[in-house]
Amino acid sequence: MSAETSTLESSIAPHLLREGRSPKHKPGAYQPPYPSFSARFGEDVTAVVMAYFGVQVRDADDPALAASLADMRQRFAATDGPAYWDRARYVDADGYTTVIGIAYWVDKAAFDAWYSAEGAPWTDPARVADGVGHFLELVTPSVDRLETIFSANDKVEGVAGAGTGMSGMIEEHAYWGSMRDRLPLSQGAPLYPEGTPRIVEDGPVCTVVLHENACVIRSGQDLTETGETERSAYLAEVEPSLREGMDFLRDQGNGIGCYDNRYMTVLDENDQPTLRTFGVSWWRDLSALEDWAASHPTHVQIFGVAMRHLSSFGPESRLRLYHEVTVPAATEQRFVYVGCHARTGMLRAVS
Amino acid sequence: MSAETSTLESSIAPHLLREGRSPKHKPGAYQPPYPSFSARFGEDVTAVVMAYFGVQVRDADDPALAASLADMRQRFAATDGPAYWDRARYVDADGYTTVIGIAYWVDKAAFDAWYSAEGAPWTDPARVADGVGHFLELVTPSVDRLETIFSANDKVEGVAGAGTGMSGMIEEHAYWGSMRDRLPLSQGAPLYPEGTPRIVEDGPVCTVVLHENACVIRSGQDLTETGETERSAYLAEVEPSLREGMDFLRDQGNGIGCYDNRYMTVLDENDQPTLRTFGVSWWRDLSALEDWAASHPTHVQIFGVAMRHLSSFGPESRLRLYHEVTVPAATEQRFVYVGCHARTGMLRAVS
Repeated sequence: MSAETSTLESSIAPHLLREGRSPKHKPGAYQPPYPSFSARFGEDVTAVVMAYFGVQVRDADDPALAASLADMRQRFAATDGPAYWDRARYVDADGYTTVIGIAYWVDKAAFDAWYSAEGAPWTDPARVADGVGHFLELVTPSVDRLETIFSANDKVEGVAGAGTGMSGMIEEHAYWGSMRDRLPLSQGAPLYPEGTPRIVEDGPVCTVVLHENACVIRSGQDLTETGETERSAYLAEVEPSLREGMDFLRDQGNGIGCYDNRYMTVLDENDQPTLRTFGVSWWRDLSALEDWAASHPTHVQIFGVAMRHLSSFGPESRLRLYHEVTVPAATEQRFVYVGCHARTGMLRAVS
Repeated sequence: MSAETSTLESSIAPHLLREGRSPKHKPGAYQPPYPSFSARFGEDVTAVVMAYFGVQVRDADDPALAASLADMRQRFAATDGPAYWDRARYVDADGYTTVIGIAYWVDKAAFDAWYSAEGAPWTDPARVADGVGHFLELVTPSVDRLETIFSANDKVEGVAGAGTGMSGMIEEHAYWGSMRDRLPLSQGAPLYPEGTPRIVEDGPVCTVVLHENACVIRSGQDLTETGETERSAYLAEVEPSLREGMDFLRDQGNGIGCYDNRYMTVLDENDQPTLRTFGVSWWRDLSALEDWAASHPTHVQIFGVAMRHLSSFGPESRLRLYHEVTVPAATEQRFVYVGCHARTGMLRAVS
């Protein structure tokens, strides 16, 4: 790994550390078995914006899809556009192809200005006439409601693309409970959920209101730099278990507090699939995500095969792993659907 | 299961509950998938005494063993003797047969009086002449440093035998992190360890001093009431994995913070083996135990086979499970060895 120093630091940025915090392992006394890193943002950053702009089509060759994607690209390039964005695709349980542009800002004012001009039209009620679905899933967590982890510090993904770089090697990882310990707000709050999801229908526009302390995770893997042998091993040994877990969360997640899951493939500049994939899932709360990760057979299986893969390749492994987890306040979430089918995204959270 | 009501209560007794506690799941909002119970003690009980009186022989037929065991029985029956005790046997990694009488008091004054008269002689330096080993491993945790869990509420084991009965169905179980949430002191303290184990040799007497917030767990299973089919299934499917995990902790536990582990069989009135077994292990701290339980392959395996067993027998299962976990302060521990070999109990904690 490319760590430059063996000193550990907290995953929580220095200016967000609180006196008297109590992570599971005493700060300074724990040595994780392998290195990990967290994204860093400027001290002036108080919140980040994560905006999932989606388009949903029954037929992947529908010209409306290409048109929407070109339009999205143009909008992102406009003044005050995202600091970083990427685009990914998946086919949902109903067979609809969905492409999402995930855009990140660290300047909320810039986002607001951009949104008025370029973002709002994406879910304009009139678009229902397009015959394809459009949606926006927007999260604007304060920085103490966000944590990230990366297996290497020399390449960014997701929200890290809008950051200032990576931390040194962090302490809070490689043990159960470390995700919570990385969340700055968990230093003083148990992050319990409060309230029930509900849906507001206004003509063709469906808006979902979740509740306090819902949780979203984007968790990905990048095979770009793996060699032939490692890639084959990953595809044969790891990917099937990962897919099974992703399908479980998509199809039966509701029973364990998972509102929705998408297992997506990142697209390149020409909208062609890359060797980067990720799951993005919405949860009732951090505990529901923790419980699944720690004890559900589907994740125990994923964890087992991934660990076997990493230990069999050891330092030769070129597989990159990362995730970003957000526990937004109720006021930091917004879900808007126009022309989408009834089992899209957070529409599924409302029973 | 024998629950009489479907209302849940905290594993933490009402008089030990603190304002503003933050278990992982919000109190009142979590429904565990199956019932569990905790032992209750009188509100006047401020600390419990757990005294492990051991005798160690190279040859199980050594008459000194039977003599010591008879002597122990007599001492326990004396004035101010234990409120409850049981006896268990195992053969350690060096091939020594070890029998331990585990005695429980909830009246510290009674224990102190009894100990002066009947307990202290057990590890008298002169006993080194016996040619067999004797030891006392003593823990006297305040009640906020103890938690227990039982799969059924109509039969006691261990420290519960000295209690006043069982709680109703508890909330804090069946999720990772619930063990910590059941410990009253964890409501306000992270329970970090502090200090290093050391050994004090005084002639033939070796005394080990551990450190702040070490952790001991006694975790058991009772097959007494299982039918032929369930017992065979347990022995074929569950016990081998349990034994493997117990052997791992005994032989390689030190690398993950486990000082010692004994996988023991409870003996009956005539010192014959019963269908009740337990592991008793000492850990550097609660986190080390949590980390093993949540992610070490040996425990993941135990957990998996046990869950398969319980779900395949469902309500027909007559397997009883329980554990008691203590995180004693440095002043609440005492380990004394006379005539024991150098790899006995906490002597192994000192490198």
